Amino acid sequence: MTRTVRIVLVGLGNLGRRFCDLLVQKGPHVEATYGLRLVLVGAADSHGWAYDYHGLDPAQVSAIKQAGGTVAEYTAVGRSGLPAADLIIYEGADVLCEASPVNLSQGAEPGLTHIRTALMRGVHVVTPNKGPLVMAYTELHEMAARQRVQLRFDGTVAGGLPALYLGQRDLRGAVVDRIEAIPNLATGYILELLGDGLSWEKAKARARTEGVLEADPSFDLDGWDAAAKLVILVNAVMGLPARLEDVDRIGITGVGRADIREARAAGRVYRLLATAERRPDGGADLRVSPTIIPTGHFLSTLGRKQMGVVYHTDIYGTIMAAIDEPTPLPSAATMLRDILDIFLE
Amino acid sequence: MTRTVRIVLVGLGNLGRRFCDLLVQKGPHVEATYGLRLVLVGAADSHGWAYDYHGLDPAQVSAIKQAGGTVAEYTAVGRSGLPAADLIIYEGADVLCEASPVNLSQGAEPGLTHIRTALMRGVHVVTPNKGPLVMAYTELHEMAARQRVQLRFDGTVAGGLPALYLGQRDLRGAVVDRIEAIPNLATGYILELLGDGLSWEKAKARARTEGVLEADPSFDLDGWDAAAKLVILVNAVMGLPARLEDVDRIGITGVGRADIREARAAGRVYRLLATAERRPDGGADLRVSPTIIPTGHFLSTLGRKQMGVVYHTDIYGTIMAAIDEPTPLPSAATMLRDILDIFLE
Repeated sequence: MTRTVRIVLVGLGNLGRRFCDLLVQKGPHVEATYGLRLVLVGAADSHGWAYDYHGLDPAQVSAIKQAGGTVAEYTAVGRSGLPAADLIIYEGADVLCEASPVNLSQGAEPGLTHIRTALMRGVHVVTPNKGPLVMAYTELHEMAARQRVQLRFDGTVAGGLPALYLGQRDLRGAVVDRIEAIPNLATGYILELLGDGLSWEKAKARARTEGVLEADPSFDLDGWDAAAKLVILVNAVMGLPARLEDVDRIGITGVGRADIREARAAGRVYRLLATAERRPDGGADLRVSPTIIPTGHFLSTLGRKQMGVVYHTDIYGTIMAAIDEPTPLPSAATMLRDILDIFLE
Repeated sequence: MTRTVRIVLVGLGNLGRRFCDLLVQKGPHVEATYGLRLVLVGAADSHGWAYDYHGLDPAQVSAIKQAGGTVAEYTAVGRSGLPAADLIIYEGADVLCEASPVNLSQGAEPGLTHIRTALMRGVHVVTPNKGPLVMAYTELHEMAARQRVQLRFDGTVAGGLPALYLGQRDLRGAVVDRIEAIPNLATGYILELLGDGLSWEKAKARARTEGVLEADPSFDLDGWDAAAKLVILVNAVMGLPARLEDVDRIGITGVGRADIREARAAGRVYRLLATAERRPDGGADLRVSPTIIPTGHFLSTLGRKQMGVVYHTDIYGTIMAAIDEPTPLPSAATMLRDILDIFLE
């Protein structure tokens, strides 16, 4: 017995395009294994969208984007100049995959509107977009509960690592007193390149070429990305209503090449570490800062393109998890993980 | 709205007794947070059992066991000489927690009979007991599916680490090509003590005193425990019907103190490593053997009382997880995790 899941995908950058590739690569496997037929009915980028209730060809969407085009050029059903929000209310989607660019200011738009629109229409939401979760964590969860739909955002923290599933579901019954995380890939990579002797400019250029660094480098380098992920972790895993302004945040731009080389000579690594510690008064101290990871610490073995998280709990011991993510594929695959999680339970 | 979950607990050793403590410690929290009232209606050890539909006092059960007694001595409702299987069919349990001693020979009894009995009665099963899963993985899963009840066994692999939830649920959609694991705590601990200069006898005695080593040391030292856990991992995460006899197994008894010291001098650690590698013909090569973990490998930082697992996947990158488990509490807590997983979904 096969069930059809109709997907609308908004945002066709690094993650959205790779998600189309995953639908091509994994569609038959998912249908054979789980009885779910994943059908991409709509896809939008900032120039327009394409819609077909019987299914777009995700390979064509991916090819258009790889060639630098817009999905508005999609054969016969592409339309330019229309906002993605119109696509979301169009017709018959079961789930919205919201992968538009992350925006931590200006109200986390346009992602927040897309997610609100879907939830209000009774459509499940899957998103690796941190902005809306950081800005409106509680509001969106209450809205989803009221509408009896699911909101999944596993891709917002530490790429393809299921840090949130681990922290929310597998630690149920526990109190998490402390979280330590290296949730941002770009900063660790750039710190290592600096340690290799590259200049700041060259290190940033290399990271940008490899798709590791965003167009606006301050998002990563000033610790905004790590802070946003920490806020989501604290809300989701500690159950505390933390906000971005609660994070004591220091980025990596003040770290000198000599500092990194010195740490390296002593066999240690520099990373942008994010920590949250529960206070006796019921709140938590949130901090992001460049840190020399002590030898023997779990996070000390993390390689250049790895991220990790450590949960200190009262009844499950200390649980640590990490991911090696050489390309953004695992981050895109979190949308598949989230969809399967919604429709297989 | 509170839902009552009636629990029968069979096996009151290290894990069963601690599970009673957890019911005392976490019962109010679980009821307040999740609306589940966990009621221990029956408890059995090898001498007898106690049953009360309105609930036993888990604190009294724990106290009796800590004093070296049997639950047959439980006030008013304890009965001696009756087999646990009779308790399971008695009345009105929602879930069986099967924590009787692990037995990899003699048909994995008595655990296997307990689990079969519960499933046939339509009772959910939660167990950290490897034996029945190793001996009858497919049979028990088919039986649970037919009876429309859940079978959970997160505690069978790597103690309190949610290695199975991570591998089965968070990697859905992926192909897992290779698994590397250090799933046994006793061998790593003993290897470290040997490296410290202790004799084999003293190392074993210390591990036994700390509750790390089983009464029958060959279970750990000859690699049976690691092999059993690998078999469960391969069945659950790779989806292949591996059996204990498929494991190419070497224990740690041939490792000399000089070997460990030499590795240590080079900054490396010896561990009993379990690996599974998918073959092109659709099978897998399973191996357990003492191994010097390469520097920089994720598992190389694991401390004396830590366990870990690495999953190599096609779409989620390489995902690694580890636990620091200074006492058996996290292993006992897997039964709470499993119960919450069943009744909250």
